[in-house]
Amino acid sequence: MNKKGLLIVVSGPSGAGKGTICKEILSRRKDIFVSISATTRQPRKGEVDGINYFFKTREEFERMIDEEAFIEYAEVYNNLYGTPKEYVLDKLNQGENCLLEIDIQGALQVKKRYPEGVYIFILPPSMKELKSRIIGRGSETPESLERRFSSAFEEIEFVNQYDYYIINDEVSTATDTMESIIDAERCKVIEDIEEIVAMFKEEI
Amino acid sequence: MNKKGLLIVVSGPSGAGKGTICKEILSRRKDIFVSISATTRQPRKGEVDGINYFFKTREEFERMIDEEAFIEYAEVYNNLYGTPKEYVLDKLNQGENCLLEIDIQGALQVKKRYPEGVYIFILPPSMKELKSRIIGRGSETPESLERRFSSAFEEIEFVNQYDYYIINDEVSTATDTMESIIDAERCKVIEDIEEIVAMFKEEI
Repeated sequence: MNKKGLLIVVSGPSGAGKGTICKEILSRRKDIFVSISATTRQPRKGEVDGINYFFKTREEFERMIDEEAFIEYAEVYNNLYGTPKEYVLDKLNQGENCLLEIDIQGALQVKKRYPEGVYIFILPPSMKELKSRIIGRGSETPESLERRFSSAFEEIEFVNQYDYYIINDEVSTATDTMESIIDAERCKVIEDIEEIVAMFKEEI
Repeated sequence: MNKKGLLIVVSGPSGAGKGTICKEILSRRKDIFVSISATTRQPRKGEVDGINYFFKTREEFERMIDEEAFIEYAEVYNNLYGTPKEYVLDKLNQGENCLLEIDIQGALQVKKRYPEGVYIFILPPSMKELKSRIIGRGSETPESLERRFSSAFEEIEFVNQYDYYIINDEVSTATDTMESIIDAERCKVIEDIEEIVAMFKEEI
């Protein structure tokens, strides 16, 4: 029996550490692949096209929207971000677990189309810590910093749209928790249970 | 904030290995206490009153039923089994996680009264293996053996009333999975999330 893969959607405010946790979980688990987003924003230092993102011009991105090629897309801080649909659904049907690290707007779009996904919200240990992490990243102007921080403040409210929250006190513990969530979700009783019961009974 | 404990209810057919898994998880985790059932059945070899069960006469047990002292009770193979209510609810309110290892009839009664519990069904690796485990236990007459086995066959259907299933191929792996379920359930977004968000916002 080919059990369908899990779509694991991870969001949280900037600076909560979702990127670090996702990187850590991918290094631990060979049964999870990461979906790569397309974006119109400029690459940050060290980011590579086709690895961190598919970097697109606005024109290219809009053509993909017209072709309904995204499972979700959103405009954030004047940049477009989107998740290519076919790639993700193919992998899930093949039984692979797919990790999507996306912003809240995107996650909620995915949830509408794919409610059976696993929606995880990463929280910082405190708002104070969140602010200092955003500052520490050093990639922001003072204006965008302020905008990001007040946006983070609002975003935290969205946790109640998610299935799970993880308080990221410490990356390795937070990653342990994410592993537990994935393992638990794999043995949830869902539609496939009838098939499992039938298999048991056939044996005799 | 005193987060309420989880009520973890574990069932499965005779011979699926639920007792062994529960023993193993209790030896690993200090944050889980086990609820002790009351029963009118005769103690098996090595079983101690107040540790494995509270052994009661039928008269004592029936008095407790009248006093509504059980979260659930059931008659199985002419013996009564029940879970003392006050003890369990007190511990949960104190934030302790409570493990109930009970038969399916009992579990479904608990689920009606306490739907926010975590309901886990233990499956044997195969029906063949289940049969040889029941025989191996050696505590059954041929007649009760046959009754138990055909009952196990029926019981498997009830898995769809549970939240999770664990296939008990190997005790330590099955226990790992149960630990993951418990850890995942601890960070589910439930009513308490509003309180957590409020705490975050207060900080600033």
